[in-house]
Amino acid sequence: MIEQLGEIGLIERISKKFLVDKQIVTIGAGEDDCAIIDIDKAKGGHKYLVVTTDTVQESTHFPAGISPFQIGWTAVAVNLSDIAAMGACPFAFTIAMSIPAHTETAFVDELVEGIEKCASVYNTAVVGGDITRSKELSLTGTCFGFADNPVRRTGAGVGDLVCVTGSLGNAALGMKIIKNKNEVEVKATKSVEEAAKKALFQPVPRIQEGIILADSGSVTSMIDISDGLALSLAELRKSSNVGFEIDEDKVSVFNDEIRSAWEWDLDLSMLGFKPRELAFYYGGDYELLFTMDMTGVRKDEELLKRIKGKVKMSIIGKVVPPEEGIYFKTGEGKEKEMMEIKGYQHF
Amino acid sequence: MIEQLGEIGLIERISKKFLVDKQIVTIGAGEDDCAIIDIDKAKGGHKYLVVTTDTVQESTHFPAGISPFQIGWTAVAVNLSDIAAMGACPFAFTIAMSIPAHTETAFVDELVEGIEKCASVYNTAVVGGDITRSKELSLTGTCFGFADNPVRRTGAGVGDLVCVTGSLGNAALGMKIIKNKNEVEVKATKSVEEAAKKALFQPVPRIQEGIILADSGSVTSMIDISDGLALSLAELRKSSNVGFEIDEDKVSVFNDEIRSAWEWDLDLSMLGFKPRELAFYYGGDYELLFTMDMTGVRKDEELLKRIKGKVKMSIIGKVVPPEEGIYFKTGEGKEKEMMEIKGYQHF
Repeated sequence: MIEQLGEIGLIERISKKFLVDKQIVTIGAGEDDCAIIDIDKAKGGHKYLVVTTDTVQESTHFPAGISPFQIGWTAVAVNLSDIAAMGACPFAFTIAMSIPAHTETAFVDELVEGIEKCASVYNTAVVGGDITRSKELSLTGTCFGFADNPVRRTGAGVGDLVCVTGSLGNAALGMKIIKNKNEVEVKATKSVEEAAKKALFQPVPRIQEGIILADSGSVTSMIDISDGLALSLAELRKSSNVGFEIDEDKVSVFNDEIRSAWEWDLDLSMLGFKPRELAFYYGGDYELLFTMDMTGVRKDEELLKRIKGKVKMSIIGKVVPPEEGIYFKTGEGKEKEMMEIKGYQHF
Repeated sequence: MIEQLGEIGLIERISKKFLVDKQIVTIGAGEDDCAIIDIDKAKGGHKYLVVTTDTVQESTHFPAGISPFQIGWTAVAVNLSDIAAMGACPFAFTIAMSIPAHTETAFVDELVEGIEKCASVYNTAVVGGDITRSKELSLTGTCFGFADNPVRRTGAGVGDLVCVTGSLGNAALGMKIIKNKNEVEVKATKSVEEAAKKALFQPVPRIQEGIILADSGSVTSMIDISDGLALSLAELRKSSNVGFEIDEDKVSVFNDEIRSAWEWDLDLSMLGFKPRELAFYYGGDYELLFTMDMTGVRKDEELLKRIKGKVKMSIIGKVVPPEEGIYFKTGEGKEKEMMEIKGYQHF
């Protein structure tokens, strides 16, 4: 158990796992009171520093069955997802760990491995941290990145396309499978279960996608979908003062892994809930929701095709005037149906 | 209670308390996925970005009687203290708050007031944060600042003076008074009690002192004393590979407020413990421990006098070769007595 290592022993054990480029990060984790970063070398030619902080916590964020590696991964990924939502390039990360005293050393080692892995996959240096004894496991990450034209939530304009990267509902399916197998009658095969759980346990931050979208110059607003599409749309609506018309059928539900693992035709009604339930009102997929201006001088089918060649995405609707609110429209001539604004909220 | 506000309501309520200079912090707390900072404007002429993160937690860090304001203040102060220990100038701060659901809104308001107050007193902008529901109150701050010549822990050399800012034992006295009035027989008057508790509840980060010391060019190593002087000396010893001779009698125990409030001659033996107990083995004062090279070309009594004019400090000993370890010497001809290396450790 980590109690036997002592605080200083534990910090030494963990710090040496985090390698940094000494030309830029002069002093890294566990070496001094602060990390020291050569700011001009770090920023490259970029104009803006972007900063975000996010906590993941045992009682709130860790579904049954998640591994220590995946907990560590998630603590980094949720922060990187916010960096991605600005279209920024992540650079450095700090991790404050609150850990119960009786925790096994092997558990902490795996946790640290997950942190290191997710950070290094996305070229992010872990430069510092803190360890505190606590009642429940809790990890707070803070991530720094750089950008020239960070994409705000405020720029959506009427007529813009509404788009989402990847697919939604994967993490929600994983959660449904874990929580109430009986209740929702998810007749999922083992491989569907594995794929859904992987989406839930080890979210993928859309760093590359965010950068490509920001660089395209056509993206007018962007946000990551942490607590479901409905809440993210509501946030964009508030920031940009617009409404949204969403074509429910255009929302890509479930990733290829889940779809291909499904042994029969994927009929979502069979699951006992509409796909919109999973995509709109549950979080955990960390895809990017964004709007694109394709009108006027920017009307460029070629550009859209080019972006689609690099970023897996769906066009799910369009931006409408604010007084119209947020509504579904499933086809021509159908009635509008207002969207409920609900999803995961901490309080 | 904060449950009634909802997460979004809570974030809005809190964010608007944190004002920033929009010329530099383009986007601040609660406005987008990340804060956006104009890095060239922020860094001024400085070369290095320094970063630190620290958590304060109900079950570990909050002594009985501490107010929500003081909890918020402390969450910022402990991070600023690490910035001070580099001799750096703090610039911005993020705060991740894990809060039990049943917490009163007034409590959170006071907490936020403490965060805002401590940050603004030290010219630090609160640029972002996070709110999570948790079992116990826990606040993780991440602070970043700028420096040209950050003072490391590694530069202490044999013959350097060993110095400490301010006085020690104040927070420890506060803790003793709270914890075991009977056990230690602290016959403290009400005003002594108030002064000691204030030191414990609302620590003062030595930002100005750190900058002056770093700018002096004579300081060879520096660290903040969070968990007692003994552990901080041990850290410096490890980083600089040196030993320390400490003159116990030179360590300034208790601040002027406590000393003047004491109604009779301050005889520490009366307290039932040696002053070294309080100063060396208990933390919470957040003073700076540093070494100064006053030999050779730097031997400059005038310089020392000038620094002493600006920074309240005591010279408590000297740096000795590593094989001598860390020891006390209370006067001429006295025997060396090895210092125990103990203090607060989380694990």
